[in-house]
Amino acid sequence: MKLTRLDKLRLRLVAQDACLGWAFNDIAGKPGIVFELGLGHGRTYDHIRTHLPDREIYVFDREVDCYEDCIPPSDKMILGDMRETVPEAVQRFSGQVVLLHADTGSYGDKHNSAMQQLLNATLAPALAPGGLLVSDLKLDVQGTEPLPLPPGATESRYFIYRRT
Amino acid sequence: MKLTRLDKLRLRLVAQDACLGWAFNDIAGKPGIVFELGLGHGRTYDHIRTHLPDREIYVFDREVDCYEDCIPPSDKMILGDMRETVPEAVQRFSGQVVLLHADTGSYGDKHNSAMQQLLNATLAPALAPGGLLVSDLKLDVQGTEPLPLPPGATESRYFIYRRT
Ligand SMILES: C[S@@+](CC[C@H](N)C(=O)[O-])C[C@H]1O[C@@H](n2cnc3c(N)ncnc32)[C@H](O)[C@@H]1O
Ligand code: NI
Ligand code: NI
Repeated sequence: MKLTRLDKLRLRLVAQDACLGWAFNDIAGKPGIVFELGLGHGRTYDHIRTHLPDREIYVFDREVDCYEDCIPPSDKMILGDMRETVPEAVQRFSGQVVLLHADTGSYGDKHNSAMQQLLNATLAPALAPGGLLVSDLKLDVQGTEPLPLPPGATESRYFIYRRT
Repeated sequence: MKLTRLDKLRLRLVAQDACLGWAFNDIAGKPGIVFELGLGHGRTYDHIRTHLPDREIYVFDREVDCYEDCIPPSDKMILGDMRETVPEAVQRFSGQVVLLHADTGSYGDKHNSAMQQLLNATLAPALAPGGLLVSDLKLDVQGTEPLPLPPGATESRYFIYRRT
């Protein structure tokens, strides 16, 4: 039977949760900051800040349109078009990002391939050695290698890469 | 650790999927139509029509604001305020509904308790004998009894009732 819209969202959320949970554990004890690309309604931001209360978390979006209790502090919210804000932030925080969560996909193929191109071309210098890139889109960032997904995550619903 | 916004959505979708899957199986071979209360983005409508291709499915919402590939046929879409459309449809299809999925909640307590009151007060005559009411809100509809949730569904994230 075909996967329904409900199946796709559910599999995505289950995979996202498994991948982030695995990443929280993996980075424990390693120094570094966190990038959250895509605030959206603030759900994954809420998840990340709850599990990583001591990390600096920089959040990127073109707008703040999230639940009121999920609004990032203004000095951590990087507002604007990611085509501009991401390259700038990668320079500013070069080598400091221990976890980069990129949740920038949508249901539009065109948007998704533009995002993949942007992220593939710009993210490499941001990651700390051993740092993780967790993404809803399949990426190919120089100097990173794909990792197997943790239990519970369905293949190709989410992606994890480590800076080698 | 507190449940995050992401945890709540994930648990809700996993429970919803488990309850609907159980219900599809339970009603197999029993005659009757389906009510879907709350089109939203059309995800559960897509799920229900995919699993129940031979059922008449009536969908209720104040608007059609869903994925383009999830728009119900116009003669099955009951547009308007459910405070008016639901009581009317309950009269029209009295005793014919073998599965009634009510996904009408939001994050607002006031909206939710208004919805609970409406559904509690109006749904009873709709259900066929043995018919199921699957709901995101806890309900108390005369002549129905709560059923235990199927495996995978977390208690109180979704609800199943059967007309006795
Ligand atoms: C939780 S959403 C439904 C989500 C949908 N089942 C899905 O899976 O995508 C609830 C829906 O109920 C509708 N709704 C809430 N109160 C309503 C009312 N009084 N009359 C008509 N529609 C209402 C909203 O417009 C919204 O689309
Ligand atoms: Ni929205
Ligand atoms: Ni929306």
